[in-house]
Amino acid sequence: MTKEPRQKRAQETRARILAAAIECFSREGYDATGVSEICAAAGVSKGAFYHHFASKHTVFLELIETWLASVDAELARLLAAASDVPQGLLRMAEVAPSIFADARGRVPLFLEFWRQASRDPEVWRATTAPYRRYHQFFEKLVETGIQEGSLRAVDPDVVAQVIVALAVGLLLQGALDPQGADWSKVAREGVGIVLDGVRGHATKPSA
Amino acid sequence: MTKEPRQKRAQETRARILAAAIECFSREGYDATGVSEICAAAGVSKGAFYHHFASKHTVFLELIETWLASVDAELARLLAAASDVPQGLLRMAEVAPSIFADARGRVPLFLEFWRQASRDPEVWRATTAPYRRYHQFFEKLVETGIQEGSLRAVDPDVVAQVIVALAVGLLLQGALDPQGADWSKVAREGVGIVLDGVRGHATKPSA
Repeated sequence: MTKEPRQKRAQETRARILAAAIECFSREGYDATGVSEICAAAGVSKGAFYHHFASKHTVFLELIETWLASVDAELARLLAAASDVPQGLLRMAEVAPSIFADARGRVPLFLEFWRQASRDPEVWRATTAPYRRYHQFFEKLVETGIQEGSLRAVDPDVVAQVIVALAVGLLLQGALDPQGADWSKVAREGVGIVLDGVRGHATKPSA
Repeated sequence: MTKEPRQKRAQETRARILAAAIECFSREGYDATGVSEICAAAGVSKGAFYHHFASKHTVFLELIETWLASVDAELARLLAAASDVPQGLLRMAEVAPSIFADARGRVPLFLEFWRQASRDPEVWRATTAPYRRYHQFFEKLVETGIQEGSLRAVDPDVVAQVIVALAVGLLLQGALDPQGADWSKVAREGVGIVLDGVRGHATKPSA
């Protein structure tokens, strides 16, 4: 079923505005970027901009949400295909480099998120909510691992925090210093070390 | 031996400028802060400022160096007092919360460092060099642990990256979301989990 032309055009305009905003925020920073610059970079009118977004703040929040939604989808896909929790975690570590690579060009943008988060309560919620969500995601995963016997009876809360902290640290270091290490290897073996620390004796037979 | 009054006064002026710069950079951001504002906040003349620092950029770099030097000194002190590498690592994890607490009020400043690092090669070097230095520090520590038999024959490079990534991740999350977890517990037990993954069978008797 093809979309109505007007709806399709509206979606293209919206996507162009978001792409232009990434470019402007990364280059100039959030504060120095105005709606006019985003419009000029996107080749759209201010009217078109405000038809889609209430403010540059709305655009900023949507950029955070969109990136996180794509990461979420990827993690869920990998987990669904894994035979047990340790395998799921190792597969997540394997795709980490592509998540990092995707993030690389966006370093200035992430730093803008974090910087604004320390000043703006709404951005703070949008930036910290995902950490808390990822924490819950990994906490449940660890609980599943303990139930299936692939992990020993560790504290799911702490292990989840360790996994999230490791991911955040690798993301930031890999983004700031791509040549500083083989980040792909570090992610894979790092998760392997954490798994060696928490692995149980029994493992669920592969499905 | 008391210091010469003039020298003492000079040191106090320097310290006042640095403290005022932390305050201004944290509140206004690096770009929006001028030398005049730092001088006003410090209660010193521009002449006094330029007697001590070539530019606000120099002040900024010195703030990074000073904080890192204090962290280094603390890590070295803990290590010297530990009987073996696992104990040294656990003690470092125990002081992590105070390093985090010290960092907490400086979040906007760290984010400024990282943001400027993505634009300014000199700040980039000043910001990434410490990660590489900490990496080497922990790499040597892991090598020592393998030699003394407290750690099994792991890859020191990878374990060091994991430790640094964990520390960076905890620092950022703890700073952005102090109420999000018991970061002190997470640091201690997180290092414990990594140690469980890399611990050797023999342990050096305590000194």
